[in-house]
Amino acid sequence: MSQLAVRNNDNPLLKPSDLRPSAEGLEIECLLNPGVFQFNGKTYMLVRVAEKARQREGYFSVPVLSGSGRMDVIDIPLSDPALDRSDPRVIRYHDDYYLTTLSHLRLLCSDDGHRFFEPPESVILRGEGPYESYGIEDCRVTQIDHTFYLTYTAVSPNGVGVGLITTVDWKVFRREGLTLPPHNKDCAIFERQIGQHYYMLHRPSSIFIGGNYIWLAESPDLRHWGNHRCIARTRSGKWDSERIGAGAAPVFTSAGWLEIYHGADESQRYCLGALLLDKDNPANVIARSDDPIMEPTAPYEQTGFFGNVIFTNGHTVHGDLLRIYYGASDEVICSADFSIDAILDSLR
Amino acid sequence: MSQLAVRNNDNPLLKPSDLRPSAEGLEIECLLNPGVFQFNGKTYMLVRVAEKARQREGYFSVPVLSGSGRMDVIDIPLSDPALDRSDPRVIRYHDDYYLTTLSHLRLLCSDDGHRFFEPPESVILRGEGPYESYGIEDCRVTQIDHTFYLTYTAVSPNGVGVGLITTVDWKVFRREGLTLPPHNKDCAIFERQIGQHYYMLHRPSSIFIGGNYIWLAESPDLRHWGNHRCIARTRSGKWDSERIGAGAAPVFTSAGWLEIYHGADESQRYCLGALLLDKDNPANVIARSDDPIMEPTAPYEQTGFFGNVIFTNGHTVHGDLLRIYYGASDEVICSADFSIDAILDSLR
Repeated sequence: MSQLAVRNNDNPLLKPSDLRPSAEGLEIECLLNPGVFQFNGKTYMLVRVAEKARQREGYFSVPVLSGSGRMDVIDIPLSDPALDRSDPRVIRYHDDYYLTTLSHLRLLCSDDGHRFFEPPESVILRGEGPYESYGIEDCRVTQIDHTFYLTYTAVSPNGVGVGLITTVDWKVFRREGLTLPPHNKDCAIFERQIGQHYYMLHRPSSIFIGGNYIWLAESPDLRHWGNHRCIARTRSGKWDSERIGAGAAPVFTSAGWLEIYHGADESQRYCLGALLLDKDNPANVIARSDDPIMEPTAPYEQTGFFGNVIFTNGHTVHGDLLRIYYGASDEVICSADFSIDAILDSLR
Repeated sequence: MSQLAVRNNDNPLLKPSDLRPSAEGLEIECLLNPGVFQFNGKTYMLVRVAEKARQREGYFSVPVLSGSGRMDVIDIPLSDPALDRSDPRVIRYHDDYYLTTLSHLRLLCSDDGHRFFEPPESVILRGEGPYESYGIEDCRVTQIDHTFYLTYTAVSPNGVGVGLITTVDWKVFRREGLTLPPHNKDCAIFERQIGQHYYMLHRPSSIFIGGNYIWLAESPDLRHWGNHRCIARTRSGKWDSERIGAGAAPVFTSAGWLEIYHGADESQRYCLGALLLDKDNPANVIARSDDPIMEPTAPYEQTGFFGNVIFTNGHTVHGDLLRIYYGASDEVICSADFSIDAILDSLR
C-alpha cells in the first residue's frame, strides 16, 4: 500500500538542530508530532519540542518547570543514593519524580508548506499549573468558526490527561482546563457540529480489561463531554494490535468522515491507517484499513530517537490533496502527500 | 478513632443466602456496596449482587449476559487446553474472555433502615449493551429535584467506565450512556448545583504517572463533564497509600461538603476516611482525615470473600445522624452510625 503516500523530497523538513532551545542549559532532543492549521493564508505548525538538560560531569541533570512557568535545570549528584534512574523516562530523587525530557509547543510558520520558520514574535506554549508540570505534548488544532481549539496531552504527577486551550488570534490564549481525566491522549475535535453536538475522538487506556482504543465523545459546548463510545479497538495479529489513537481532526468527505490514525504492534512499530465514519453518526464505522496506508520505510523513519515510528496529528487539505505532517522516529518532522480519493478507494 | 462508628448490632444486615439468584444455574457469591436513598418515606438500597455459575463436575462454568439481557451459563470442559484460568478474575477461552462472577443491581426496601426486603415487584438492573456485558457494579444514587441519578461501574471488554441511569419513579429507567470513559469508577454526583454547575467526584486510574486518585468534574447538564481536577491523592506510608475513591454523594454541612471516602493500603486493607470540601468551591479541600474514621475490626469485616474490607457508597442523613451502609469483606451488607459533628470535630 506504500504507493498511497508520496513523501516530500525535502524530508526531514525539520530536525532538532533547526530550532533554538527555549532556555539556558537546555538542549533540544527531539521534534515531534505537530498540529497543523491554516491562518491568514499561511500554513502553521505547532510542533512538540522535547528538551533535556545539558549534562554536567558527575551529575544527572533534569529540566523542571518552575511555578512561574520558567524552565530550570536541577543537577543531581550521580553518587547520591537517593537518585533512582531505573526507568529511563522518569527519574526518582528522594520522593520527587522528574521526566528526563520536558516538552513544550512551538509555533512555526510557512508560506509554501515546506519551509517552516519561527515567526518574528515567537510563540511558545509551555505547561502551566498542576496538570502540566511535566510539559504538554502532541497538540491537535481544530478550527470552528473563528476559534482554534488546541487539544493536547497534559503531563503531571496527577497523571496524563487531555488539556484544552482556545485562541482566536494566536496571541492571546485561554486555558480551559482538562477536558478528559487520566489516562487519556490523542484527542481530536471534529471541525463542525453534527446535529446538536460537537464530537471528538480520544484514546483512554485501561489498567484492567480493555486496552488502548479509539473512543468518540460528544459535547454541547466543547468544554463538557459525555456519551463516550468505543469506535475502534486494536486488532490481534495485525499492524495495529497493541495501541491505536486518532490523528488530527477527521476530514469531511462525501463518503463520510475520514480519520487518519496511528497503530502500533507489539514491537512498537507505528504505522498509519484510515477509518471512515458515518457522516451523520460518527459512532458508526463504515470502513477501516486492513493494511497500513503508510509504514516507516524511509531511513529517517526507521532510525532515530525511537525508530520505526511515523505518527501524525496534523494535516492540510486542498481539494483531493491531503498533506500530512508527521513525526518520524520521534525525532524529526516530515510530510507526505495523499490523494483522499485513493485512500477512500483503499477502504472499499 | 474507632469510637466514631457505632456498628449496627444486627450486622451483617444482609448476606448472600438472603436473596435468590437472578436466574437458573446461578449462585450468589457476594453482596456488595449498596447505593442508598429515601423514596416515598422508605429507605431503599440498590445492592450489587455478584453471581457465579453453579459448577458441574468436569467443567468450568461461567455466567454470561446474552444480547437480550438474559443470564446464561457457559460450561467449558476443564480438560480443554483453550481454557486459561491463570487470572482468578478473568477466564480466557479461545479468544473470548469471561468474568468468574457477574454483578447486577437489585432494589431492596426497608421501613426501619435495618431490615431490607425485595419489594413485591422486584427491580433488577442488569448490564445492557456493549459497555456493560460484564455487568454493572457499585452504584451511587443522587437525587436532584425529582430525578434520581444512578452512577455505576460499567464493565465490558471495552474497559471499566462510569455509566449513568436516570429514573423518577424506580419503574422506568433511562440509560444515559457512559459519562466517563475507562479506566474510571467510584463516581458520585453532588446533590445540588454550586453556582452554574453540577459537580461529581470520580476515580480515574493511570497506566503511567499518576495513580488512583479522587478527581472533581463539573457539568452544565449532568450528562457532559469537564474541567477535571485532582482533589486528593494517595498518601505514602498512610492507611490510604495505594488507592482512594469517593463514597456516596457528599453531605452538605455548615462547614462544607463532607465526603466519606475509602482508602486502601498496599495490603489491600480498606478503611473509611473523610474529606471536607469548600462549600462554594469543592475543588478546595479544607481538611482530610489523618487516621481512618472506621477500620475493618469486626469479625465480618475481617473475614469473608475478600477480608479486611469496608467499602461504602450509600448513606442516609437525619439531622446529625449519618448512617452509612457498607459492604464488609466484599460479601455482606452492614450499617454503622456516625455523628456528623463528631466527624467534623475529628477533622479539626
